[in-house]
Amino acid sequence: MRALVLSDREVRVDEVPDPQPQAGEALVKVLMAGVCNTDLELVRGYMGFNGVLGHEFVGIVEQASNPHLVGKRVVGEINCVCNTCHYCRMEMPNHCLDRSVLGILKRNGAFADYLTLPEENLHLAPASARDDVAVFTEPTAAAFRIVEQVKLTDNDRVVVLGDGKLGQLCAQVIHLHTKNLVCVGKHPWKLQLLSNLGIKTALADEPVMRGADVVVEATGSHLGFERALELVRPEGTIVLKTTVTHPTALDLSIPVINEVTILGSRCGPFRPALEALSLGNVGVRPLVTDTFTLNDADQALQRAAEPDAMKVLIQM
Amino acid sequence: MRALVLSDREVRVDEVPDPQPQAGEALVKVLMAGVCNTDLELVRGYMGFNGVLGHEFVGIVEQASNPHLVGKRVVGEINCVCNTCHYCRMEMPNHCLDRSVLGILKRNGAFADYLTLPEENLHLAPASARDDVAVFTEPTAAAFRIVEQVKLTDNDRVVVLGDGKLGQLCAQVIHLHTKNLVCVGKHPWKLQLLSNLGIKTALADEPVMRGADVVVEATGSHLGFERALELVRPEGTIVLKTTVTHPTALDLSIPVINEVTILGSRCGPFRPALEALSLGNVGVRPLVTDTFTLNDADQALQRAAEPDAMKVLIQM
Repeated sequence: MRALVLSDREVRVDEVPDPQPQAGEALVKVLMAGVCNTDLELVRGYMGFNGVLGHEFVGIVEQASNPHLVGKRVVGEINCVCNTCHYCRMEMPNHCLDRSVLGILKRNGAFADYLTLPEENLHLAPASARDDVAVFTEPTAAAFRIVEQVKLTDNDRVVVLGDGKLGQLCAQVIHLHTKNLVCVGKHPWKLQLLSNLGIKTALADEPVMRGADVVVEATGSHLGFERALELVRPEGTIVLKTTVTHPTALDLSIPVINEVTILGSRCGPFRPALEALSLGNVGVRPLVTDTFTLNDADQALQRAAEPDAMKVLIQM
Repeated sequence: MRALVLSDREVRVDEVPDPQPQAGEALVKVLMAGVCNTDLELVRGYMGFNGVLGHEFVGIVEQASNPHLVGKRVVGEINCVCNTCHYCRMEMPNHCLDRSVLGILKRNGAFADYLTLPEENLHLAPASARDDVAVFTEPTAAAFRIVEQVKLTDNDRVVVLGDGKLGQLCAQVIHLHTKNLVCVGKHPWKLQLLSNLGIKTALADEPVMRGADVVVEATGSHLGFERALELVRPEGTIVLKTTVTHPTALDLSIPVINEVTILGSRCGPFRPALEALSLGNVGVRPLVTDTFTLNDADQALQRAAEPDAMKVLIQM
């Protein structure tokens, strides 16, 4: 099959053997996949990953032990877990000590004709969500993780830092919980997409009211955290969504003095994400910048790295 | 009166005018004061403070509008607040926007013959707590802040990093809530003080079981945070007690991946601290390294900066 393979910080589309599903795993024919900033970080050496990239996808199950899955259009959770370790038993499977992660850690990913995933990771894609919508399930779930970790009320004042594809999803999901929200970004046209949905926005160099109850750091830059510290109120919460390995120089006395809570936030729940996407409560199609074929997947990654790009899709 | 005055990173004992209590303030004759690492940081430029140092004290009220206070032996909370701003109204007075802080911010401190504080900041010192015990109320309250912020159960596994005077108090307070605790330090004789109380200890270069539910960072060093990240479990909590302005280079992807909660922690409640000190549930007299007179207060600071020192007291 064809696959976009990362090897020592080089990516190329290559012919590789079809993946063989292990016990409990389904074989999925990928229909469409999305490029995430994490993919770009992986190419820069993040996690030391080598293999097939890609973890956002929608596909068709071709083989599965559960006959009800075969032929179904699915999306999939990316953490493949042991179900036996301490953290799995503590109902924290995303932190399984023995996990592999689709296209990120010890498991080939979705920029390929086929992938395998445990059947328990798969969710049926609602018919009302087209491929170019359903493919957003994984990053939308990551945005829903925020409201799983922080119980927002409609009195809470929230700032989302970052108007990129993750910041946009975070802002839309938070907007379902509080209207007292402003998204801060650098790109007028990206902020306009949020304004169109009735979400308040501000450019990064505009003054933003300080003293936010919650600041979501989704800039994708190691510089976002310092800004978050400026904007959050004492005893407020900063949610960190950005994963960059670039070391950040921090004066940790500021969060101590202000008794700030800083909360790392990663993968999230698929069910509310699927519901929001199928009902249109989270709108994603304006976020699509470009679509490439799998044969041109290396170009898709290049395109996704350009500053004016949002979501770049790969069609198999 | 005599006072230890910080001026442009220089400290000296000087004659200064007696402080004049403002409306609502008491005049307190200081009996004894304690040197905190924060005092040493202030001398290095932290907070840009100039004035009389010192914020841990026990003293006698000489003037107060409340006649029941006059002549009483007291300790005092260090944040002097407006009672009207947004954060005061939100019952977060320690984060008052218009606050002054005894010996730290816009208010002369306790290394002096006299200090003034709002009467509402004062607490009667129990007769059962001698001066060299009651003087520990403020840092003991800071340790109690941890258990106010993090609801510990006796199943929680806790690591305290740092065997200095703050680490010792944190370990003792946490030990009241869970026996599943280890304090990690660099000084066998300091750790021995905790062992004497039945608290488990480990030297910094000894292996410590990873996967702690809570790690308290009280090393006083900018290097402690990285160790805390190694030891805390996914979705666990790091409590930051250290205030150093030295920038810390951090790979923030680690707390994101592990969804760690990082909690800044500063001043705490005086009531449980006074109770614990008066009942002997927290033992502080073994922590006293040396006592200097106010005339030699500059030497007290020098002594407190030496690596083998714990609490240095100043007797007026």
